Amino acid sequence: MFVVMAGGASEADINGVKSHILSEGMTPFDHQGTERVVIAVVGEIGPRRQRLIDRLSALPGVETVTRISRPFKLTSREFHPEDTVVRVLNATIGDGSLTVMAGPCSVESREQLFETADSVAANGATILRGGAFKPRTSPYTFQGLGVEALRYLAEARERTGLPVVTEVMEPNQVDIVQEYADILQVGTRNMQNYSLLTAVGRVARPVMLKRGYGATVEEWLMAAEYIVSSGNPNVILCERGIRTFETYTRNTMDLAAVPLLHHLTHLPVIVDPSHATGKRWLVKPMALAGVAAGADGVMVEVHPRPEEALSDGEQSLTLEQFRSMMSALVPIHAQVRHLHGDPLPSAPALGVGGASGH
Amino acid sequence: MFVVMAGGASEADINGVKSHILSEGMTPFDHQGTERVVIAVVGEIGPRRQRLIDRLSALPGVETVTRISRPFKLTSREFHPEDTVVRVLNATIGDGSLTVMAGPCSVESREQLFETADSVAANGATILRGGAFKPRTSPYTFQGLGVEALRYLAEARERTGLPVVTEVMEPNQVDIVQEYADILQVGTRNMQNYSLLTAVGRVARPVMLKRGYGATVEEWLMAAEYIVSSGNPNVILCERGIRTFETYTRNTMDLAAVPLLHHLTHLPVIVDPSHATGKRWLVKPMALAGVAAGADGVMVEVHPRPEEALSDGEQSLTLEQFRSMMSALVPIHAQVRHLHGDPLPSAPALGVGGASGH
Amino acid sequence: MFVVMAGGASEADINGVKSHILSEGMTPFDHQGTERVVIAVVGEIGPRRQRLIDRLSALPGVETVTRISRPFKLTSREFHPEDTVVRVLNATIGDGSLTVMAGPCSVESREQLFETADSVAANGATILRGGAFKPRTSPYTFQGLGVEALRYLAEARERTGLPVVTEVMEPNQVDIVQEYADILQVGTRNMQNYSLLTAVGRVARPVMLKRGYGATVEEWLMAAEYIVSSGNPNVILCERGIRTFETYTRNTMDLAAVPLLHHLTHLPVIVDPSHATGKRWLVKPMALAGVAAGADGVMVEVHPRPEEALSDGEQSLTLEQFRSMMSALVPIHAQVRHLHGDPLPSAPALGVGGASGH
Amino acid sequence: MFVVMAGGASEADINGVKSHILSEGMTPFDHQGTERVVIAVVGEIGPRRQRLIDRLSALPGVETVTRISRPFKLTSREFHPEDTVVRVLNATIGDGSLTVMAGPCSVESREQLFETADSVAANGATILRGGAFKPRTSPYTFQGLGVEALRYLAEARERTGLPVVTEVMEPNQVDIVQEYADILQVGTRNMQNYSLLTAVGRVARPVMLKRGYGATVEEWLMAAEYIVSSGNPNVILCERGIRTFETYTRNTMDLAAVPLLHHLTHLPVIVDPSHATGKRWLVKPMALAGVAAGADGVMVEVHPRPEEALSDGEQSLTLEQFRSMMSALVPIHAQVRHLHGDPLPSAPALGVGGASGH
Repeated sequence: MFVVMAGGASEADINGVKSHILSEGMTPFDHQGTERVVIAVVGEIGPRRQRLIDRLSALPGVETVTRISRPFKLTSREFHPEDTVVRVLNATIGDGSLTVMAGPCSVESREQLFETADSVAANGATILRGGAFKPRTSPYTFQGLGVEALRYLAEARERTGLPVVTEVMEPNQVDIVQEYADILQVGTRNMQNYSLLTAVGRVARPVMLKRGYGATVEEWLMAAEYIVSSGNPNVILCERGIRTFETYTRNTMDLAAVPLLHHLTHLPVIVDPSHATGKRWLVKPMALAGVAAGADGVMVEVHPRPEEALSDGEQSLTLEQFRSMMSALVPIHAQVRHLHGDPLPSAPALGVGGASGH
Repeated sequence: MFVVMAGGASEADINGVKSHILSEGMTPFDHQGTERVVIAVVGEIGPRRQRLIDRLSALPGVETVTRISRPFKLTSREFHPEDTVVRVLNATIGDGSLTVMAGPCSVESREQLFETADSVAANGATILRGGAFKPRTSPYTFQGLGVEALRYLAEARERTGLPVVTEVMEPNQVDIVQEYADILQVGTRNMQNYSLLTAVGRVARPVMLKRGYGATVEEWLMAAEYIVSSGNPNVILCERGIRTFETYTRNTMDLAAVPLLHHLTHLPVIVDPSHATGKRWLVKPMALAGVAAGADGVMVEVHPRPEEALSDGEQSLTLEQFRSMMSALVPIHAQVRHLHGDPLPSAPALGVGGASGH
Repeated sequence: MFVVMAGGASEADINGVKSHILSEGMTPFDHQGTERVVIAVVGEIGPRRQRLIDRLSALPGVETVTRISRPFKLTSREFHPEDTVVRVLNATIGDGSLTVMAGPCSVESREQLFETADSVAANGATILRGGAFKPRTSPYTFQGLGVEALRYLAEARERTGLPVVTEVMEPNQVDIVQEYADILQVGTRNMQNYSLLTAVGRVARPVMLKRGYGATVEEWLMAAEYIVSSGNPNVILCERGIRTFETYTRNTMDLAAVPLLHHLTHLPVIVDPSHATGKRWLVKPMALAGVAAGADGVMVEVHPRPEEALSDGEQSLTLEQFRSMMSALVPIHAQVRHLHGDPLPSAPALGVGGASGH
Repeated sequence: MFVVMAGGASEADINGVKSHILSEGMTPFDHQGTERVVIAVVGEIGPRRQRLIDRLSALPGVETVTRISRPFKLTSREFHPEDTVVRVLNATIGDGSLTVMAGPCSVESREQLFETADSVAANGATILRGGAFKPRTSPYTFQGLGVEALRYLAEARERTGLPVVTEVMEPNQVDIVQEYADILQVGTRNMQNYSLLTAVGRVARPVMLKRGYGATVEEWLMAAEYIVSSGNPNVILCERGIRTFETYTRNTMDLAAVPLLHHLTHLPVIVDPSHATGKRWLVKPMALAGVAAGADGVMVEVHPRPEEALSDGEQSLTLEQFRSMMSALVPIHAQVRHLHGDPLPSAPALGVGGASGH
């Protein structure tokens, strides 16, 4: 449930509410909105709900207490009506600018990474991606260069000024990865690896959470809720396709999830057409489509020589193809940007506060 | 297989090849491309393939005979490298212009239809849609006004000048529907109703073939092949969402199918975000996304008072929402239009001829 | 809604209720159960529901009027608590006996059909299957022998005494097919071909309705409702697999649908492991599983020389494999048969009457 | 690739082959079959394949070297033709006996666990299940009693003599869980948590690997390959349903996976109808179906008072329902047991050795 404080509630009122929630064995999370403070009450409420609502409603400074039927709380628009804007080095994600994460699937060598990084930086990428620890379906295929790759990524950041995003696969890797990387990625296979979600929820780096290929939008938001409720508010969602009966493409890119998420949550949403389609010649049109649907940005795989890539070569853009994609994407983003201040004029109301910013 | 004629092949050469194909019990379909003629050989070839290739290769004017591994022939880019452009009254579909089909799910009354038609025509719709015969999951719900609705649609065409598209559900309805409508729609549940496909393949009206909600792209093209091989080359494909495990939206809109189809086939592709999402507030962003992905147009449901609609009210735009969608869609289309002359610069070659126009 | 008549209601009472329903513009369907009569009210009820309930409740002989939330009415257990038993020639389906439909995918010649029919009859098949009109994904592959095949099937019935089931693909074929066949099959692609459902609903032959490969259980029952509400109560349901992301098997056989259907409906349920798996070596174990789950029988494809079959050879059993399957299936059926008198001891109550027989 | 040794190959020959494989930077895994030794070569072979085949073929005692196209090696029937039989305390899994894993979803208290354990042990269960660490979609719901539950499980083992299976959710939990439990379960959400797979691959306890709800059979076997190639050969596979468009049941139980797996792999296969269906009244028929399809056993959730369960109450059997299920399951298993010595008489050959035992 959410406790909506009155416009003139004092710091003492807010603390009083939070103390009471703690005394009930629940955890309070407060959000200072543009107009007022909302305090989410999380934990297993069970049968005492009505009693709790009555008591909280009676506390000083409380305007109203609302039940929330959706299972996600801290990630919901009700709790946090304004868009979350993630800032990392010079990049911002979710503020209406165009985020472009680009780089190789796997870091294969210093040369391959630098060649790619220099080129994508020169052509408009805002964040550098590159795999150090690779989740592979087979135990017998290339698993990534590990810490060596992390060092190359840090060097590439120095060269280009771009923040670095890379995947972390287990709780024990979190420390080493956050030492080198700026954004930690949780991959599609680990979307419901709750130990990992909790671990990345405790660090001071933004997290990019990819959708599980078999997960619903609601489960995805619940996974984000694990991270946010562990203390890390800077979560970026990344749609990368779901598994369906259609086999022509690697997965089916669920672009309706983009405006749907902008309605349900305040977190920024990125789309990954490389993994969603699995075919490089589908990346450009699907990147355009993602941005037109309101995505805050795209993530694409780029390789100087895709035919030699150790992983995912079939879906990697060449340097030239990346440049071509960017030259189409930037004007489209400029064109749609103003539209997404009000993409959902007729979306049903969401209780306290409405969607803003998107 | 395809027989590619030499640049200087004469009419007699072409007829010679076609005669030989007929004498083998197969059917020839020829296409006069911009540079040369291609003749498709359709029918069950079986074990005599090599002998047939040898004989055809030796005929005068034949440049080469190629095997085609894909099961669709007449609908393939190999056979027909240029885009098919469908022309009906003053509308053209597939020539790079923006097609917008709009109107009510069901025609409920003359007044409801005229009010809708006048408004969408004034705001940029190019084709009027409206259901006369409605396929309904339940035998106990509104099944459409039938012929009465067809008459209203014809009247609305007179008022607005817009050509009319409406669904035909069985072979016996083809005659009456084509009498009133300009484009015949085959619905998602009938995508593999082969009797119906063959029946609409024999009329002189364009056909819009919606994708089956459980059908692959390849099966969809094979369904189009039924229509084209029955004699009707004017087929428009309409992506309307496929069925997946995600239940937040009615179906999952498979936008990657748009550039995929432009690669595989010469037929125009329309997207229907109303049925794909089932929620009116998702229609606008998904229409934008569809056009950005290269769709030749969109189809949307519009109703003056969606809350009173006899079917699909939840997904129908109001008149004002349609106007708002159009004001966003037109500039996006203008922006992307030039991009789709070469959307697939790195798509693998397709044998004879390459993709052009899209 | 359902009108449950009192135990001692007279014929006049029943007619009174039916007359009233007709006078309201709705259609009454009555079912004489073991203990009392239930009358279903079908049609679009809309806002007058409460008024109608009040009026019907006040009529003589009416015990109670119940609202039914499920969209299927005549096919529901509430309306018709006892199992439907379909009788055709000497075969009965749904009475606890083991139904085995066997024969070739397509009738290819008199010899092929007779060889198969004689063998499956000698080894326990109770119904002969064989395709005359074949729905094929491609317009260029074998489409069946048509009426010639129907004649062979009728001859095979004379030889073996087995009733014949064969597919009908369009309303115009219903007359000719029912002239030769004993059970009309509606195929997976036509499950929502409402014209066809209505047409087979008007004939005096039982109908086997295969599940659409993309259809939910509820939509399937709604399709059956079309047939039953058109006047034909003898519908047999056939589970043949649904489309999922798993590609190792042709489709995914949804065996939980078997006990689920026995809970929801009184209609008999058959399983088709040949189409569901697409691999002949999976047919036997899945036939066993289907019967163990409570299916009323199985349908399998059998061919004397599958490697020469014109369609579906990969999934056809040889004559010897059919014999082997039967020798395993019969004792399993005998073993489970008594279990399915009460398969669902803890299934939630269904309103009037409970599941019986299954 | 696999090196098949000649019947009379000596220990020295075998060691020579293994040494050569090691010297190439690959890892040898040998399996002593009933007739001869097979040595799998795992690692990234890449372009040197032909050279490696030539060299290995020339070594003393080598009969043949075969390429394996399937990506799973150590889990394949080719490598290990005989069924793997897992032995733990007095239980054996995979030897043709009926394995029944039963117990509560979550261990909620000592009393709840003991009451359940005593009852299922008395009614034929062979292994006790119970959740200590629970993976939950929401961070705000009951997450299990943790180590306290592990202690209760160990006590219950003492009371009943049944070995205990419980889930482990992260690498750091492996040590503590293996201290108390006899079989470690990897849950559906963690099927591709490679860190966890590797960790359980290094312990001396059998592992039960549940299928990911969005995973193909091939990916599932690749996940098992991670465990086996890490050193743990005792892997049990558990089918628990996949995610499809059908929403009446929680998931769709893919029973064809059972005979398919018996064909592809030597590992035992268990089915879990509780999670697959999500409805207790579907558990019994689907348990029967699973065993009829050849499953080595079933896993079911049982709770003395399901309506009070802290998790999964809707799908838990009561003690009495478990007893009822067992009384049906035991005779069916006895009936089918002999059938599964040869369930696949016409399955295509698998290279070296054929399926045996199943």
